[in-house]
Amino acid sequence: MVLYQLLQKHSGVTKINLYDHKLTAPSELNQVVPIFRGDQTEVLPYDDDAIIQNNDAVFFATSAGVTSKIAPKYMAAHFPVIDLSGDMRLASEAQYTKWYHKPAAPAKFLRQTHYGLADFESAKGQTYIANPGCYATATLLGLAPLVQNDLIEPDSIIVDAKSGTTGAGKTPHAITHFTQVDENLQIYKPNQHQHIPEIMQELQSWNDQVPAIQFMTTLVPINRGIMSTIYAKVKAGVNEDRLTSAFKETYTNKHFVQYTGTQLPDIKQVVGTNNCNVGFVYNLVTHTITVASVIDNLLKGAAGQAVQNFNQLFNYKETEGLDLQTFLP
Amino acid sequence: MVLYQLLQKHSGVTKINLYDHKLTAPSELNQVVPIFRGDQTEVLPYDDDAIIQNNDAVFFATSAGVTSKIAPKYMAAHFPVIDLSGDMRLASEAQYTKWYHKPAAPAKFLRQTHYGLADFESAKGQTYIANPGCYATATLLGLAPLVQNDLIEPDSIIVDAKSGTTGAGKTPHAITHFTQVDENLQIYKPNQHQHIPEIMQELQSWNDQVPAIQFMTTLVPINRGIMSTIYAKVKAGVNEDRLTSAFKETYTNKHFVQYTGTQLPDIKQVVGTNNCNVGFVYNLVTHTITVASVIDNLLKGAAGQAVQNFNQLFNYKETEGLDLQTFLP
Amino acid sequence: MVLYQLLQKHSGVTKINLYDHKLTAPSELNQVVPIFRGDQTEVLPYDDDAIIQNNDAVFFATSAGVTSKIAPKYMAAHFPVIDLSGDMRLASEAQYTKWYHKPAAPAKFLRQTHYGLADFESAKGQTYIANPGCYATATLLGLAPLVQNDLIEPDSIIVDAKSGTTGAGKTPHAITHFTQVDENLQIYKPNQHQHIPEIMQELQSWNDQVPAIQFMTTLVPINRGIMSTIYAKVKAGVNEDRLTSAFKETYTNKHFVQYTGTQLPDIKQVVGTNNCNVGFVYNLVTHTITVASVIDNLLKGAAGQAVQNFNQLFNYKETEGLDLQTFLP
Amino acid sequence: MVLYQLLQKHSGVTKINLYDHKLTAPSELNQVVPIFRGDQTEVLPYDDDAIIQNNDAVFFATSAGVTSKIAPKYMAAHFPVIDLSGDMRLASEAQYTKWYHKPAAPAKFLRQTHYGLADFESAKGQTYIANPGCYATATLLGLAPLVQNDLIEPDSIIVDAKSGTTGAGKTPHAITHFTQVDENLQIYKPNQHQHIPEIMQELQSWNDQVPAIQFMTTLVPINRGIMSTIYAKVKAGVNEDRLTSAFKETYTNKHFVQYTGTQLPDIKQVVGTNNCNVGFVYNLVTHTITVASVIDNLLKGAAGQAVQNFNQLFNYKETEGLDLQTFLP
Repeated sequence: MVLYQLLQKHSGVTKINLYDHKLTAPSELNQVVPIFRGDQTEVLPYDDDAIIQNNDAVFFATSAGVTSKIAPKYMAAHFPVIDLSGDMRLASEAQYTKWYHKPAAPAKFLRQTHYGLADFESAKGQTYIANPGCYATATLLGLAPLVQNDLIEPDSIIVDAKSGTTGAGKTPHAITHFTQVDENLQIYKPNQHQHIPEIMQELQSWNDQVPAIQFMTTLVPINRGIMSTIYAKVKAGVNEDRLTSAFKETYTNKHFVQYTGTQLPDIKQVVGTNNCNVGFVYNLVTHTITVASVIDNLLKGAAGQAVQNFNQLFNYKETEGLDLQTFLP
Repeated sequence: MVLYQLLQKHSGVTKINLYDHKLTAPSELNQVVPIFRGDQTEVLPYDDDAIIQNNDAVFFATSAGVTSKIAPKYMAAHFPVIDLSGDMRLASEAQYTKWYHKPAAPAKFLRQTHYGLADFESAKGQTYIANPGCYATATLLGLAPLVQNDLIEPDSIIVDAKSGTTGAGKTPHAITHFTQVDENLQIYKPNQHQHIPEIMQELQSWNDQVPAIQFMTTLVPINRGIMSTIYAKVKAGVNEDRLTSAFKETYTNKHFVQYTGTQLPDIKQVVGTNNCNVGFVYNLVTHTITVASVIDNLLKGAAGQAVQNFNQLFNYKETEGLDLQTFLP
Repeated sequence: MVLYQLLQKHSGVTKINLYDHKLTAPSELNQVVPIFRGDQTEVLPYDDDAIIQNNDAVFFATSAGVTSKIAPKYMAAHFPVIDLSGDMRLASEAQYTKWYHKPAAPAKFLRQTHYGLADFESAKGQTYIANPGCYATATLLGLAPLVQNDLIEPDSIIVDAKSGTTGAGKTPHAITHFTQVDENLQIYKPNQHQHIPEIMQELQSWNDQVPAIQFMTTLVPINRGIMSTIYAKVKAGVNEDRLTSAFKETYTNKHFVQYTGTQLPDIKQVVGTNNCNVGFVYNLVTHTITVASVIDNLLKGAAGQAVQNFNQLFNYKETEGLDLQTFLP
Repeated sequence: MVLYQLLQKHSGVTKINLYDHKLTAPSELNQVVPIFRGDQTEVLPYDDDAIIQNNDAVFFATSAGVTSKIAPKYMAAHFPVIDLSGDMRLASEAQYTKWYHKPAAPAKFLRQTHYGLADFESAKGQTYIANPGCYATATLLGLAPLVQNDLIEPDSIIVDAKSGTTGAGKTPHAITHFTQVDENLQIYKPNQHQHIPEIMQELQSWNDQVPAIQFMTTLVPINRGIMSTIYAKVKAGVNEDRLTSAFKETYTNKHFVQYTGTQLPDIKQVVGTNNCNVGFVYNLVTHTITVASVIDNLLKGAAGQAVQNFNQLFNYKETEGLDLQTFLP
């Protein structure tokens, strides 16, 4: 839904065709997604031949287990895809099956996809872009300066990530019932969150010394927003100035990532935007760095980064369609 | 306020006299604390001679910097005190001044107080009980089985603690304004929270190998409740069974601490009670244990534990006045 | 669940037997209601013969459409029932069918029940007590002084009632999903709420001039609590003093209803208690009285009033099991 | 703050100069309003001569009591002003003093201002525009079809308005402390809200039969958004079709007001936009219409409507700078 809002304002998008797997006959957007009250835009039943024939690119916003089945057809046709699902993010069939508990796409297709962490990996020239998960985005952007520059003990990374309920999908469940979420904190999927392997895959592509990360997720009573609080032991010989310069160097020229210094960011700074704000404090007593990385899970963590990838793919200005302002207050 | 509610229902308490530092003439409770609408109980101006003469014990619920000045008089009189403030918790003048930014009570008095972590240190026979801080209580009860039994690498402790706004006091500040708290997560006092030294003091009394802890606090949009998420590297040779048995042995006979196994507790399980619920998961890949420890900050983290100490001091049944039920739902 | 908590602390209740319609074999409370983690109390399959034989009274906390079928058997046996459902509150079959969209119990049984608005209608000597709905309780207690004393224009009553989500039940629905409730206000069942006919039935028993009420319900992002804001035109010749004296006279001796004067009550004053707080302001310009009436929907609006009725039925002190304190803050 | 965000994206605005009454020397936006972290835009001390000389128009976003003093100078200079404060909305000195408890601007200036309810009163050709209050906007847009077409009993209007906390300003007060707002509903300023007289002034300009309105405000635990629930007795002879056609006719060509039919709007439909959504249900039994009117108090209720007035004043397209999308979800 947020993706549709963004694309409507994108200067390079002249026509958006909407397709839905669950439809058997054309419908209207307000029927399919009631929150779009009054919007009579046509929504068509999913049809891959029609999609490939009538469009220049497609965005998939499907549940796990869907694009693993349909991706090969698009790949075979060299048709540009930006896939917001997790199905094609992992290069390993075994890892996918282990973490998603579903059959993976064939390995030859998994290996052709591009992991679209847009601030580090350009989508230019790619065909099938696996858009990163929300937790993965916040966590990787917090860790990049440290891991890429080899500044922390590689086995010491601990991530305490907190997310609002929009990360949990729209289907009503007991865990997202208002009376359960409100006035509560709930740890879920301990050591089992499916974003762990894509974080590891990317971290190891940056620094093969990282053996594993400790990653926990807590559901907090807010709608939008993720905060990844990241802890790591700083390597002997690395001082605070070196840490600071690593963050500054890494993010000086990245439009969508703001380094906030020792003022750790809060979630309101980024909700409504495609920004990731990261700051850190260093504790000399424990030799531990604490990084706080915040994003809007529906924008930078999903639709916003998808548009960022789309812009790279089609050579639009990086901020095209993403010149957004925070929700104040 | 919560303390007053508890003591009203305590079978051993026949008369509660209320005193307020800010008064110069007697007033009524509903005037001093408007939420006690209609309660015309007399509140007297603070007068230490009168307190000592007319009562059997006193509870202090004052801001930092108050009881450091008045404690010596009560100690000299051997008058029982349960002090909910942080002033007399630390045995070291230097530590107090460093973390509280105020002058400390004289060392000879600081050394006479009892740190009342009631599930581990009995108040029986004590005179001046320094009631622990809310974060300290949640964190220490989560760490006790691990530190007392020497099961974790002592320099690997990381605590990511989350608290509702009642922990921040009733005075209106920008950080606790509804529009700032709502839909937000805010890290505050990074590496500077004044509960760090009392946690360290108690941990080192259990195990002098612990050099320091990494401790961070995040304000979450709830009223009551603390969750301390605790991470530590498990020592080589310690397996999950040993971890489990340590928690079971430590808490089997402790009425107010419930070990929840690998089902990590959420905050709603304890809000409204004097209970601390603790559970853990062990990650074989990272050799890291994650403990979640939850309390109601106003009960177990303040007034409830104060009554628990009061019961120990005066030989009441440990559950007297604390037979509370969770707020459902 | 709240009822079970209350009865556990009731001095006159020696044994609570739990029964569940959905069970076919005995189970444990923690299995049936997961929030009662660790509580291994036996829950038995529903069996009316066993209930009548092994108990002194029964509380029904069933969905609409259940007790209309089972009530006759208990009535025939003259077995005391406190029914928290709406099935037996209306004396008219036609009204029940119209508002509940289900078949009603036979009229001869409907006419034998007692509408248990406990602060006005004593349950003493009754057998089948239909415990009032939550909105009905808040609204009737706000209107009683005005309607009983004929102080308002009978066709001018407008009720704007607001409720937290616990009033909507525990089953996850789109309307109670956190992301839908949070930061939102949702009017639901406009002019169609099933508590309207029981309010009318009781109002007309007090004053047959009241032809109808305008009653609207709004879902607000809180867990517990109802506020009924009630508007009515004051009759010519009735001044503010007369209105005040009517509220004072009506509620002076009612333990569970507090008249707060022109300080209109807020919801926090009553959450956690069996109290209803009512206050009013009178607008001389519009000749309109505005009454605010607040209750905890799970206590005064359900389980608390059920215990109040139980106390009347079995001659216990009216506050037995209901000596509760507000959730502070 | 929201106004500044809107103007930054307005195609007709080439330069925004910021001024602050409290400054004595130039400062930066991030210093004056910390939420604009990193924004080093200059903020100048307030200086009316400089404002008039260096700008084409000015927006005032001041507290009550400020523009009553400074407005005459701008009026004398025929300099375009859009005043978001309440100081210049009422044509009557006596009314201002009664409701605002401050001295009013001289009557000759009060009578020269334009009440800028932008969907009904065009600002074209005006000089001093008093931008309406948030509650007034929601309420007037809900009532306009009924009052302008004389469809309701003029003395029967009752407004139960609910607002989030951003309506209460940014200064921390006890009433807006998170612990007081959260899980609570608080009626405030009963019969005393200062938006009552501007609503009356506008209603009477539409229909001089309306003698008064009953208007109550409740603070709800959300950040942004107002819902005005409006009740009125429908005149004899007016049926539901007539009511429907009045709403349709009134709003068919008004871009920023959407008539939602009998599906009453919720707040999420409009938060983030300059829209007002209005719907109604008619109760044949009570002859009462219930209108729900929702707006984003910071946009349609303040900055958005100010830009709408600015567009009318300077002949921009009505949607210029206001092509906003709702915050989903």
